[in-house]
Amino acid sequence: MAQTARIAILGASGYTGAELVRLIATHPGMTVTALTADRRAGEGMGAVFPHLRHLELPVLTRIEEVDPDQVDLYFCALPHATSQEVIKTLPRDKKIVDLSADFRLRDPDVYAEWYGRAHSAMDLQAEAVYGLTEFYRDEVRTARLVAGTGCNAATGNFAVLPLLVADVIDPDEIIINLAGSVSGAGRSAKEGMLHSEVSEGYHAYNVAKHRHLAEFAQEFSKVVGRPVEPTFVPHLLPQNRGILATVYVRGQAEAIHNALTDAYVDEPFLHVLPLGEAPATRHVRGSNYCHVGVVPDRRPDRAIVFAALDNLTKGSSGQALQNANLMLGFPETMGLTMAPLFP
Amino acid sequence: MAQTARIAILGASGYTGAELVRLIATHPGMTVTALTADRRAGEGMGAVFPHLRHLELPVLTRIEEVDPDQVDLYFCALPHATSQEVIKTLPRDKKIVDLSADFRLRDPDVYAEWYGRAHSAMDLQAEAVYGLTEFYRDEVRTARLVAGTGCNAATGNFAVLPLLVADVIDPDEIIINLAGSVSGAGRSAKEGMLHSEVSEGYHAYNVAKHRHLAEFAQEFSKVVGRPVEPTFVPHLLPQNRGILATVYVRGQAEAIHNALTDAYVDEPFLHVLPLGEAPATRHVRGSNYCHVGVVPDRRPDRAIVFAALDNLTKGSSGQALQNANLMLGFPETMGLTMAPLFP
Amino acid sequence: MAQTARIAILGASGYTGAELVRLIATHPGMTVTALTADRRAGEGMGAVFPHLRHLELPVLTRIEEVDPDQVDLYFCALPHATSQEVIKTLPRDKKIVDLSADFRLRDPDVYAEWYGRAHSAMDLQAEAVYGLTEFYRDEVRTARLVAGTGCNAATGNFAVLPLLVADVIDPDEIIINLAGSVSGAGRSAKEGMLHSEVSEGYHAYNVAKHRHLAEFAQEFSKVVGRPVEPTFVPHLLPQNRGILATVYVRGQAEAIHNALTDAYVDEPFLHVLPLGEAPATRHVRGSNYCHVGVVPDRRPDRAIVFAALDNLTKGSSGQALQNANLMLGFPETMGLTMAPLFP
Amino acid sequence: MAQTARIAILGASGYTGAELVRLIATHPGMTVTALTADRRAGEGMGAVFPHLRHLELPVLTRIEEVDPDQVDLYFCALPHATSQEVIKTLPRDKKIVDLSADFRLRDPDVYAEWYGRAHSAMDLQAEAVYGLTEFYRDEVRTARLVAGTGCNAATGNFAVLPLLVADVIDPDEIIINLAGSVSGAGRSAKEGMLHSEVSEGYHAYNVAKHRHLAEFAQEFSKVVGRPVEPTFVPHLLPQNRGILATVYVRGQAEAIHNALTDAYVDEPFLHVLPLGEAPATRHVRGSNYCHVGVVPDRRPDRAIVFAALDNLTKGSSGQALQNANLMLGFPETMGLTMAPLFP
Repeated sequence: MAQTARIAILGASGYTGAELVRLIATHPGMTVTALTADRRAGEGMGAVFPHLRHLELPVLTRIEEVDPDQVDLYFCALPHATSQEVIKTLPRDKKIVDLSADFRLRDPDVYAEWYGRAHSAMDLQAEAVYGLTEFYRDEVRTARLVAGTGCNAATGNFAVLPLLVADVIDPDEIIINLAGSVSGAGRSAKEGMLHSEVSEGYHAYNVAKHRHLAEFAQEFSKVVGRPVEPTFVPHLLPQNRGILATVYVRGQAEAIHNALTDAYVDEPFLHVLPLGEAPATRHVRGSNYCHVGVVPDRRPDRAIVFAALDNLTKGSSGQALQNANLMLGFPETMGLTMAPLFP
Repeated sequence: MAQTARIAILGASGYTGAELVRLIATHPGMTVTALTADRRAGEGMGAVFPHLRHLELPVLTRIEEVDPDQVDLYFCALPHATSQEVIKTLPRDKKIVDLSADFRLRDPDVYAEWYGRAHSAMDLQAEAVYGLTEFYRDEVRTARLVAGTGCNAATGNFAVLPLLVADVIDPDEIIINLAGSVSGAGRSAKEGMLHSEVSEGYHAYNVAKHRHLAEFAQEFSKVVGRPVEPTFVPHLLPQNRGILATVYVRGQAEAIHNALTDAYVDEPFLHVLPLGEAPATRHVRGSNYCHVGVVPDRRPDRAIVFAALDNLTKGSSGQALQNANLMLGFPETMGLTMAPLFP
Repeated sequence: MAQTARIAILGASGYTGAELVRLIATHPGMTVTALTADRRAGEGMGAVFPHLRHLELPVLTRIEEVDPDQVDLYFCALPHATSQEVIKTLPRDKKIVDLSADFRLRDPDVYAEWYGRAHSAMDLQAEAVYGLTEFYRDEVRTARLVAGTGCNAATGNFAVLPLLVADVIDPDEIIINLAGSVSGAGRSAKEGMLHSEVSEGYHAYNVAKHRHLAEFAQEFSKVVGRPVEPTFVPHLLPQNRGILATVYVRGQAEAIHNALTDAYVDEPFLHVLPLGEAPATRHVRGSNYCHVGVVPDRRPDRAIVFAALDNLTKGSSGQALQNANLMLGFPETMGLTMAPLFP
Repeated sequence: MAQTARIAILGASGYTGAELVRLIATHPGMTVTALTADRRAGEGMGAVFPHLRHLELPVLTRIEEVDPDQVDLYFCALPHATSQEVIKTLPRDKKIVDLSADFRLRDPDVYAEWYGRAHSAMDLQAEAVYGLTEFYRDEVRTARLVAGTGCNAATGNFAVLPLLVADVIDPDEIIINLAGSVSGAGRSAKEGMLHSEVSEGYHAYNVAKHRHLAEFAQEFSKVVGRPVEPTFVPHLLPQNRGILATVYVRGQAEAIHNALTDAYVDEPFLHVLPLGEAPATRHVRGSNYCHVGVVPDRRPDRAIVFAALDNLTKGSSGQALQNANLMLGFPETMGLTMAPLFP
C-alpha cells in the first residue's frame, strides 16, 4: 500500500467537492492538503459547509495558490469547460481525477455537438480513461487522468452494459427512463431547484436531449461494435439524493438476470437483487453501492431492468475516490464501505 | 339546471371522501346530506379531517343509517370488494358514482383474474359506465351507475387513447412509465407509506402487474378492435399528490401532437402543451386539469407522450364530481374550475 | 354589491402575485385587466406560471404600460423599497392594496431602523391602514391604501392580540417561536432556498432580529398603551406553505381560550380549537382560514397559544383579497371560502 | 484495546436497531453475532432493511434463541415495557445498553406517573446509569447496564445542563421548544406518520406532556439541587432525521456561550458555534455530532440556546455505541467519526 497520499480538491465549494471531503475524512490513506474555491477563497470549509466544521482542513484558496509539490492527486470538481482549462495548467506528472464532463467523450465532434464548443485540450482527452470503474478497472489503474462519468450515465450503464456484452438484449430497443435528484444540479442558485418548485413537482426535463445520452451512445456502441443509441428521458424527483434508472429492454428476463449476476458476482459495490425484485433509492443513499434488479414484463421477450445509486457517491465522488484508490495503489474499496443511511 | 342535489358520501373517512367534501363545499348545486364511515360513526368530519372543520356537515354515520329519501346521488368511496356489496343494497332508482375498482372491468373473467375473486354483482356491472368522462360523456349523462377509473389508468388513457383513435401510433409498442404519489395509497396505515420510508425513497412497485394495467388493456383493445396490452410500470414518488405518465410510443411526434390537440380542443379540463414541452405534477395540483405534452425522440418515428394530473382530483374525486354533474344535469365544469395550488 | 371590479396586479411574476391570480380566477366580482412583471414583460402568465395556463389573462407588461382608466384597484406585489417608489406614481384616486413591507410601520424612525433607509413616501404612509382585517376592519373599509401585514406578523398577532385586549396575559412575557415555509422567501433563486439545502434542514434564522418583530412591537404596544416587545425566533421548515406560531405566555389557559373564542366568534376565517388542542399547518393549506389553539402548561399560570395559517393565502394574498373585498364593497368572504387542500 | 467484542442486537427490525447495524458495520472492534426480531425471525436482515443487504449478518432469530456465550454486550432496541421484561432474563454478567425508556427514570413513582404502570425490575433500575455520555462518562465506563436517553431529552440537555452547572441561567425560566423528525416515532405503521399526513403538516404534539419532560426534570433537578421543571413543547417536522431544540433562557448570552464552550472544549462530538450563530439539522444528519449555538435576545438578560443532533445517531444508536465503547474499553469515538451526510 502507498503511504498517505496528499490530495487537492479543486472546486471544493460545490456538492461533489464537499462529498469528496466527507469521504476522505475517514479514508485511512489520504489527507487533504489543498482545497480551492475561487469565490470563497480565504474562508474555512466549515463556513461554506457547516456539516464539515468538525474537521481540520486547509483554508480555501484560489487554484493558482496550490503548491503542486504538496499534491499527489488532484480531484477536479469544477464546472465543465472550466475544468479543461485548469487541467491544462497542472503539472504533467500529477494524477488527476476529473469530475466534470470535459473528458468523457472520446470523439471531439461528439463533444462539440453536445457541449456547443470545440474541446481545447484534445491531447489530454486522448489520454483520459472513462471512469466507470467496473468496466475500465485495468485502464484506470495505470491512468494519469481519469474522467468521472455522468451520474445518470453511470446508473444506466450499470443496468445495460453487461446485457450488451452478453448479447442478451436487442441493442436497438433500449429505453432508459430515469429519475434523479436535486443534488445532481449542484449548489448554484437556480429557480427550478428551489424547494417550492421541486417539492410536489415531478417532471421530465431535457427530454431525449440530455447530454448524458452521448455517454450512453459512446459506451453502448463500443460494446456492440456499431452505432447504437437508446431513448433516454430523465426526470427530476423531489428528493436530495438518488437516481433510479428504469430500463425497458427486449430479451429474456432470466438470461438478463444471469448476465448481470455473472458480470457483478465479484464486484464489491454492485448488488444484483433476486429476479423479480426492484431496487429503491433510499437503500443506497449516502453509499457507494449500486442495486440492480430485473423484472420480467407480462409480454414475452421483454423485461424491465433497474439500477439505483446515490448520484453524489457512486455516481460521482464515491466513484472518483474508487478510481483514485486504484490509481494510488490502495485497495479499491478503501474508505468506501460505509453502509447507506436509512431512513 | 337541476335544483340543489342531495349528496351522500359513503366512505367519507378516506382521502377520496374528504376530497369530495372539499370540492362539494363550494359547489353551488350540491349539498351533502349524509356522510358515512363505519369505524368513525358518531364523530364529526372535523374530527377526522380537521381541514374541513369550518364546514357545517352531517355527523358521520353507519351506511345503514342513511335515509335514501334524503339522497339524490351516492358517491361510494369504499374499498373495492366492499363497494359491490354495499351498492347491491342501495335503491335501484338512485344515481351512484363509485370510486372503487369494482365496476371498471367489463369482463368478469378479467375482473376475477386481477382481483382474485368472482364479482358478486354482475348485473350492476352490466349497467355500469366507465367514468372516463372525456371518452364516455354521452353514456355518463344517462347512466345510473358510473365506475370511476383508476387514477393511473385515467392518466395513461388521456395520453394514449386519442392516438389509438387517430391511428397514429403502433398499438403493440406502448410503454407506460408512470410515477404516482402517496395519497393514491389511501389513508390506512402501512409501513411502506410512512414518511421515513417514502421520503428520498423513489422506487417501482407492482412492476408489470399493477391492476390498472387491466384498464389499459380494456380501453386500448376496445379502440383498436383486438387485444392490445401495453407495458406498464408504476413508481412511487416522495410527494402527496400528482401522477405523471411518461409514455414511449412509435409514431410521428407531429401527428401525435395533432391527434391530441384535435381530441381535446373543446375539452375544458384537458390542456395540450406546445409540441416539445413536458408537463409537471406541480402545475395541476389540487385541480381538475390534466396537462398533456409530446416530445419527439431523437430516433425517427418515436415520441414520448406525457400526461400529468392530480390523482385525488382529476384522477378520482374531481372526475367523480364531473360525472355527477352530467348525471344530474348540471354544467359539467360546475364546482371544478378552481386553479391548481402552486407552490 | 359593486359591479365587476377591474384589477391590476403589479409584480405578477412572484408567488404572491400568482396566488392573487389563483384566487381572483374564481372570484365572481373581479376581473384581472393588467398584470405586470418588468423582466418578463411580453410573456404570457402561463409561461411564467404554467399552473395558470388554463386562464385567459392579459399579457405581462411593464408597470408604465398599465392604463389607469382600466383599473379600479391595484394589488402591489413588488419588493419592498420598490413598492413605495411605484405607488407614489399611481393616480391618487385609485384604491391600492400593497403586499410589501413598505407601509406597515407607522413610525418613520422604526421603519428606518429595520429597513436601513429613510422612507420616501411618508405622506402615503400616513394614510395607509395596517391590513390585519380582523382588527382594522372599519378602517380598511374606507381606506384608499392598505398595507398587507407580514405573514409571520399576521400569524403571531392572531394568537396574541386578543389576549392583550382582554388583558389575560403578561405583556412583558411573550415568546413567539415560529416556523414558516419556503414560499415565504419568494421565487428568487437563493442558495439557502434550494431543495437540497432546505429538505431535512430545519433551522432558525434572523434570530431575535427578524423585521416582522417590528410589527409585533407596533401592534402589541398600541393595544397595551406602552412599549411592549416580545421575543421572536423564526425557523425555516422543509415545506412549501404554512406558518405555525407557538407562543409561550403567562396567564390562565382557560381565560386565554375564552378571550380568543370571544374575539373570533363571528370571524369567518378564524377558528379556535377546543381547549387543549393544537393546530397543524396541513389543515389550512391553500385556504384563507387560520386555526388557533390553547394548551395549558404543566406549570401554573402559563400556557401555550398556537396559530396556524397559509403564508401565501391568509398571510398574504388571501388577506389582500379580503381587504380588497371590503374596499370595493363586496362581501368580505367573496372568493375566499375554498376549503384547505389536504393532503 | 479489547479484542473484537461480540454484539447482540435485540429488536433489530426497528430503526434504532438498523442504525446500530449501520454503525457497527464499519466499527473495527465489534462484530454482530446475534440479531433478534420476533415477528421477522428466520428472515435475513437484508429482507427487512434492504440498505444493509451488502453486509454478512446473522439471520434474525427470536430472543430466546440467542446464545449468551456468544455475546459480550447486548443492545436492547425493544419497545419500552418489553425491554425490562427481557433484560430481567439476561445473564447478570453481561453488559447491556438499553435504548428504551425503561431505565431512564431513577424514581419509581415518576416512572409510574409517566409510563402508566409500576416498574417490574427496580433492582436493575437501581444499577442503571443514565447514558448521557458527556455528563456520566465515568459511571458509564464501569456500568453493566446503561439506559439510553430519550432523543429529545439528549438534545435539550446538551443545550441546558452546562448552564445550570455554571449557574448562568435562571432554572425556573427555561422553555424548551423542540422540533423532531419522523424516524423518532419508529417504523410501526401509524396514520399520523404517513407521508401524506406529515409532509407540509408541521404541528406540535404532546404539548407540555411529552414523557421526555420527566428526563429534563430529573436531570435539571439533580444539577440544581431542588425540583426544577421546564416548559417543553415538541413539534413534528416533515423530515426523516434531526432534532433542533430552541431553548429560551434568562441570562447573559456571553456568559452562556462561555459556559457551553468551557463544558464542551474537549468533547469530540459537541461543537459550540460562534456566539450569534444557530445550528441546523442538515449539518449533523447521519452523524454523532451535536451542534450547539447561542444568540442573544434583543431584550436584556435573555438568550436563545440551540442544540441540533440526529435523533437516530447522537440521540439514540450513536449514543448507545459511544457508551458501549466506554464499557468495552474501546476508544470512545471508535466507529463514530463519520462526517454528516449533506445534502
